Amino acid sequence: MAACFVEGPMAVVVQNTKRTDLELVDALGAFGVATIHEAQGRTGLLAAHLRPIYRPVRVAGNALTCEVAPGDNWSIHVAVEQARPGDILIVSPTSPCEDGYFGELLATSLVAHGVRGLVIDAGVRDVAELTAMGFPVWSKAVNAQGTVKETPANVQTPIVCAGAYIRPGDVVIADDDGVVVVRREDAEKVRAASQSREDNEAEKRQRLASGELGLDMYAMREQLEQRGLRYVDGSGE
Amino acid sequence: MAACFVEGPMAVVVQNTKRTDLELVDALGAFGVATIHEAQGRTGLLAAHLRPIYRPVRVAGNALTCEVAPGDNWSIHVAVEQARPGDILIVSPTSPCEDGYFGELLATSLVAHGVRGLVIDAGVRDVAELTAMGFPVWSKAVNAQGTVKETPANVQTPIVCAGAYIRPGDVVIADDDGVVVVRREDAEKVRAASQSREDNEAEKRQRLASGELGLDMYAMREQLEQRGLRYVDGSGE
Amino acid sequence: MAACFVEGPMAVVVQNTKRTDLELVDALGAFGVATIHEAQGRTGLLAAHLRPIYRPVRVAGNALTCEVAPGDNWSIHVAVEQARPGDILIVSPTSPCEDGYFGELLATSLVAHGVRGLVIDAGVRDVAELTAMGFPVWSKAVNAQGTVKETPANVQTPIVCAGAYIRPGDVVIADDDGVVVVRREDAEKVRAASQSREDNEAEKRQRLASGELGLDMYAMREQLEQRGLRYVDGSGE
Amino acid sequence: MAACFVEGPMAVVVQNTKRTDLELVDALGAFGVATIHEAQGRTGLLAAHLRPIYRPVRVAGNALTCEVAPGDNWSIHVAVEQARPGDILIVSPTSPCEDGYFGELLATSLVAHGVRGLVIDAGVRDVAELTAMGFPVWSKAVNAQGTVKETPANVQTPIVCAGAYIRPGDVVIADDDGVVVVRREDAEKVRAASQSREDNEAEKRQRLASGELGLDMYAMREQLEQRGLRYVDGSGE
Amino acid sequence: MAACFVEGPMAVVVQNTKRTDLELVDALGAFGVATIHEAQGRTGLLAAHLRPIYRPVRVAGNALTCEVAPGDNWSIHVAVEQARPGDILIVSPTSPCEDGYFGELLATSLVAHGVRGLVIDAGVRDVAELTAMGFPVWSKAVNAQGTVKETPANVQTPIVCAGAYIRPGDVVIADDDGVVVVRREDAEKVRAASQSREDNEAEKRQRLASGELGLDMYAMREQLEQRGLRYVDGSGE
Amino acid sequence: MAACFVEGPMAVVVQNTKRTDLELVDALGAFGVATIHEAQGRTGLLAAHLRPIYRPVRVAGNALTCEVAPGDNWSIHVAVEQARPGDILIVSPTSPCEDGYFGELLATSLVAHGVRGLVIDAGVRDVAELTAMGFPVWSKAVNAQGTVKETPANVQTPIVCAGAYIRPGDVVIADDDGVVVVRREDAEKVRAASQSREDNEAEKRQRLASGELGLDMYAMREQLEQRGLRYVDGSGE
Repeated sequence: MAACFVEGPMAVVVQNTKRTDLELVDALGAFGVATIHEAQGRTGLLAAHLRPIYRPVRVAGNALTCEVAPGDNWSIHVAVEQARPGDILIVSPTSPCEDGYFGELLATSLVAHGVRGLVIDAGVRDVAELTAMGFPVWSKAVNAQGTVKETPANVQTPIVCAGAYIRPGDVVIADDDGVVVVRREDAEKVRAASQSREDNEAEKRQRLASGELGLDMYAMREQLEQRGLRYVDGSGE
Repeated sequence: MAACFVEGPMAVVVQNTKRTDLELVDALGAFGVATIHEAQGRTGLLAAHLRPIYRPVRVAGNALTCEVAPGDNWSIHVAVEQARPGDILIVSPTSPCEDGYFGELLATSLVAHGVRGLVIDAGVRDVAELTAMGFPVWSKAVNAQGTVKETPANVQTPIVCAGAYIRPGDVVIADDDGVVVVRREDAEKVRAASQSREDNEAEKRQRLASGELGLDMYAMREQLEQRGLRYVDGSGE
Repeated sequence: MAACFVEGPMAVVVQNTKRTDLELVDALGAFGVATIHEAQGRTGLLAAHLRPIYRPVRVAGNALTCEVAPGDNWSIHVAVEQARPGDILIVSPTSPCEDGYFGELLATSLVAHGVRGLVIDAGVRDVAELTAMGFPVWSKAVNAQGTVKETPANVQTPIVCAGAYIRPGDVVIADDDGVVVVRREDAEKVRAASQSREDNEAEKRQRLASGELGLDMYAMREQLEQRGLRYVDGSGE
Repeated sequence: MAACFVEGPMAVVVQNTKRTDLELVDALGAFGVATIHEAQGRTGLLAAHLRPIYRPVRVAGNALTCEVAPGDNWSIHVAVEQARPGDILIVSPTSPCEDGYFGELLATSLVAHGVRGLVIDAGVRDVAELTAMGFPVWSKAVNAQGTVKETPANVQTPIVCAGAYIRPGDVVIADDDGVVVVRREDAEKVRAASQSREDNEAEKRQRLASGELGLDMYAMREQLEQRGLRYVDGSGE
Repeated sequence: MAACFVEGPMAVVVQNTKRTDLELVDALGAFGVATIHEAQGRTGLLAAHLRPIYRPVRVAGNALTCEVAPGDNWSIHVAVEQARPGDILIVSPTSPCEDGYFGELLATSLVAHGVRGLVIDAGVRDVAELTAMGFPVWSKAVNAQGTVKETPANVQTPIVCAGAYIRPGDVVIADDDGVVVVRREDAEKVRAASQSREDNEAEKRQRLASGELGLDMYAMREQLEQRGLRYVDGSGE
Repeated sequence: MAACFVEGPMAVVVQNTKRTDLELVDALGAFGVATIHEAQGRTGLLAAHLRPIYRPVRVAGNALTCEVAPGDNWSIHVAVEQARPGDILIVSPTSPCEDGYFGELLATSLVAHGVRGLVIDAGVRDVAELTAMGFPVWSKAVNAQGTVKETPANVQTPIVCAGAYIRPGDVVIADDDGVVVVRREDAEKVRAASQSREDNEAEKRQRLASGELGLDMYAMREQLEQRGLRYVDGSGE
């Protein structure tokens, strides 16, 4: 989409991108990240170095994607204008950087436009204020280091953030365990699979709580023996 | 289905291993990790990258050791059957891996068998639920990434976990500062040395709180001079 | 493409994917990674933790993409069958892992099918033998740790490798500086832009070698003054 | 017992160094680290790997500088004698080390002499006790590993701590975002600039909260266009 | 063996420990690290952060084990006296440290006593001189930082080095791929298994070089299908 | 010197700074980094993550200091004008960044002005060309990632680079072991101390090569016993 073959920095903002219906987004947000990640075949997880600035926390929203140049947060200001209620801002630097790209003022602006949180593969600051505001953030670092505004970067284009490929309008769910992305076209199926998974877990939980062994509940003993597991006695040592 | 064509891994479960008496375990658990580590000559500490998922926290128990293949938590299910009340599960991957090997269901199962906590040189997930349950965990990472069940690994054999050598039935104590292991045969002596150390600290604490200098309390001035420490005046700079 | 919403691991192999013409691939391979990266607007670079196992080295080829489970190299065997002369194998684990997924035997097999090299966001082994063979490898680690063959993963699907999004048949160029991907549809334009860039550099190199300052050659002095650069004398200090 | 045979380390303690007036120190402490860092032209920040052991927290004080040998905390005892009310102890190892140099007893001693907190580019222990005491600490690691007392190092000399150059009596401010140093001779001006910055932010916050865009408030649109930002429509995709 | 429960540092040197016969050591040294690691069931590998200071290189020897305090290399001098021809010195710090514990003078001394190389989970210096001497070293870092001689540590006791448990007289083999330890009592069996593995690989290599696919040679196709691998056509994309 | 308390980036270039006499610089360059570091009391070392792009290599020169903004190499162009024959360019980013700030063209320009090498706490590119030119570089990373030219930074001011405080005209020596800085006012004394140290080592080397033990040569046995070292027999195990 961007004319990516020319020399020098050039950036695009893609407007009016499709989003996932918020009812569906919220339904996915009712499940935890681990459940959704399992329900879609263990895909879609962002790297585990992204951590929430406070706990417990859980949020779901439409991805509002935003690249930033290293040490430069200009395009975040551009992204705010593209925000719609129910979005989560997803920020990825074009080369690794842990500066504090984001703080209380930008959060105030995002809240005014209905944005539910921030996922950033870089640093944030004002974490005391962000925590007091209840604005959820997942970041690679906490860092007071400020940034300049000299180089714009892409907004609402597909990006790679913390190792995951994310397109505008994909659903992002984040909680204490991390961050996962669900493709817009898979959202309905992943909701169903997550619900089915959760229903299934309730029964398992009860049986395990009563002392039943996973070895028996999952009928693992024969397979383990075939795979070479052997039992020996250690009482004499 | 078996891993047929390679000379492969084989795994053992050692049953009926000896444990340290729980009264002694609990006595050690009354001391902090730093005290015990000092009391046994600054040995036995696990690497500092193991961090508790919530604070404050302290627990002590008999080591229930468990290896896991990378990205594979099958042997944790095997380990549950070997658990006895008062154990702490100690999990070490056979090659470094930060996947989320452990979550709420396994914790529910361990609690049902009297296990007091988990120390894992890898990742965990469901940390909101584990925190709500009050199930103590020390891990290298928090990570929603799931694991498979294809390759069994050793249970209740001596292992290296986070740089420390741990045998089944050794005593493991963990708190906000980290994790330490006490050899079963040393447990009684380490209890005494820890008590003596703690008694000694109470008096020191009082003297320091009253303003006495460590330089005087420990009689360090002469030694420092011998080692070449010199005092100069900086008031003119 | 893969039914990514169902529970459990499932993998696909996409056959007969399009490739970039080898003449064009080789033309790109005549430029270094830094030149190509600049020529396409500073995009497409893989993370700098990928390093060549020997230097100097340069190679270009069509991306033959391959995911692997953590600690499991089964799908690399699957990928070999999909190889075509002029390919470079691009391997990315589904969760971070530094095991030694690849060694001399797999390299021998790839060479027999015309594959020109390997880019892997994980570990390799047999590096002495690979170096002696002249088989180029860029990896995250060198590690003798072996892998199992239990869990297949996707071959020839779009993947994220070391932070870059790569599709089968995109062009990958790698040298001492790192690894860059060029989208198949941009390859022709990037070739032209790279050539233009290189022509331009020859003249710059000559002027700089003769002592001309970049400040003058690029006419930077006025801009620097506008940006607040000031000169002061330090001879008196 | 002396370090006899090597050309060895020698250490100095600089006494009676100047300090910044505490009224000024406290005035700076009213601002957050991010504000002060911006107010002095984005300088003075310590590396972001220094993290507080509890949150929220904020403190300001005069730097009481102290080097330590790797695995050796002897000079911290020396530093206590040099402490004055309103100081913050700044500790930097002479080569990287993450041992637990500092715990509850040293904190008790420092509190008795009016020291307000600790910044250490190494590890600390007894974090549960330090948290309960309300003694603020910023460190690189939490680590129960103890240290010896064999090698003195410099106290109250200029040091590099976490990448920042700090002299005795410079002002150090630390909060949830990190740690910043203000040179003693700049403290008055930085106070004024911080106040001006904070006044300015109050109005911005209000406008952003009402929904005004940063693009308009900061008049960025023309500059962004000049820098090559382009808007495209994505509704058809 | 050491009275590890007493307060304060105390160290032991275990003399006259058993060694593995050098003929057997040399036989193992004829195989690469990856082969031996596989032949003993993928165990015994030291962490991959240990890298050789020059390549190519391969060596095998009896482990001469040595702990060191952080920033203190005194016990290496103690270890030299315990050296026997055919030993490899294995050094592990009691807490993590990357100082340059070892250089040309110590290497000169070790060579004079028949020691074949060094494996150290810390830093080394004089790497130009060590390379010129042809003295093989595997280390965690190259670092000119010197060390003191104040705190002795254990020599010829079992240690954990880079995550592996090593006893005096175990066999250590190291090459470009890393470092592996073979238990003294397993050495004969591992030699046989390694030979068998190598014999087997020669035939595989030839078949793969001729273009035979691993999928066929290892008869993997049916298993892959059972595990859910599916082939789809991508020619229309 | 810079008005560091005002808002916004402002940068200075300090001209006509003093340098160390090149004869003295070259005399220091005759010693290795480890020797010089020891000779000045184990101070002045830059962090060990700085590694040479080729080996073996050794160079010494006057520090030509240069800060750079993250992802922005503009001030390197400014620094070239300040270069004098015998300088080494020392580059430090104002916040951590591993982009490829420097390549063949800048090296060509520096060589034309007599600069002897580069030390950069960030990334470089064109390492094949730099190696072929024989231009020595010590860097934190090799990275093809390009930089912009938007934000000037200080040139020839005192800086912190890789944890060391360096002023213009201080002497920097770099070799395979790393990088060390000698203060201009200490250069003469450090030369003498280094020579004395090297003379002393020649005799030690000879004695150690003949088999004499360090324990005897340094008369360590009594001290070791006093520090608690004990010898035990392990032949019966």
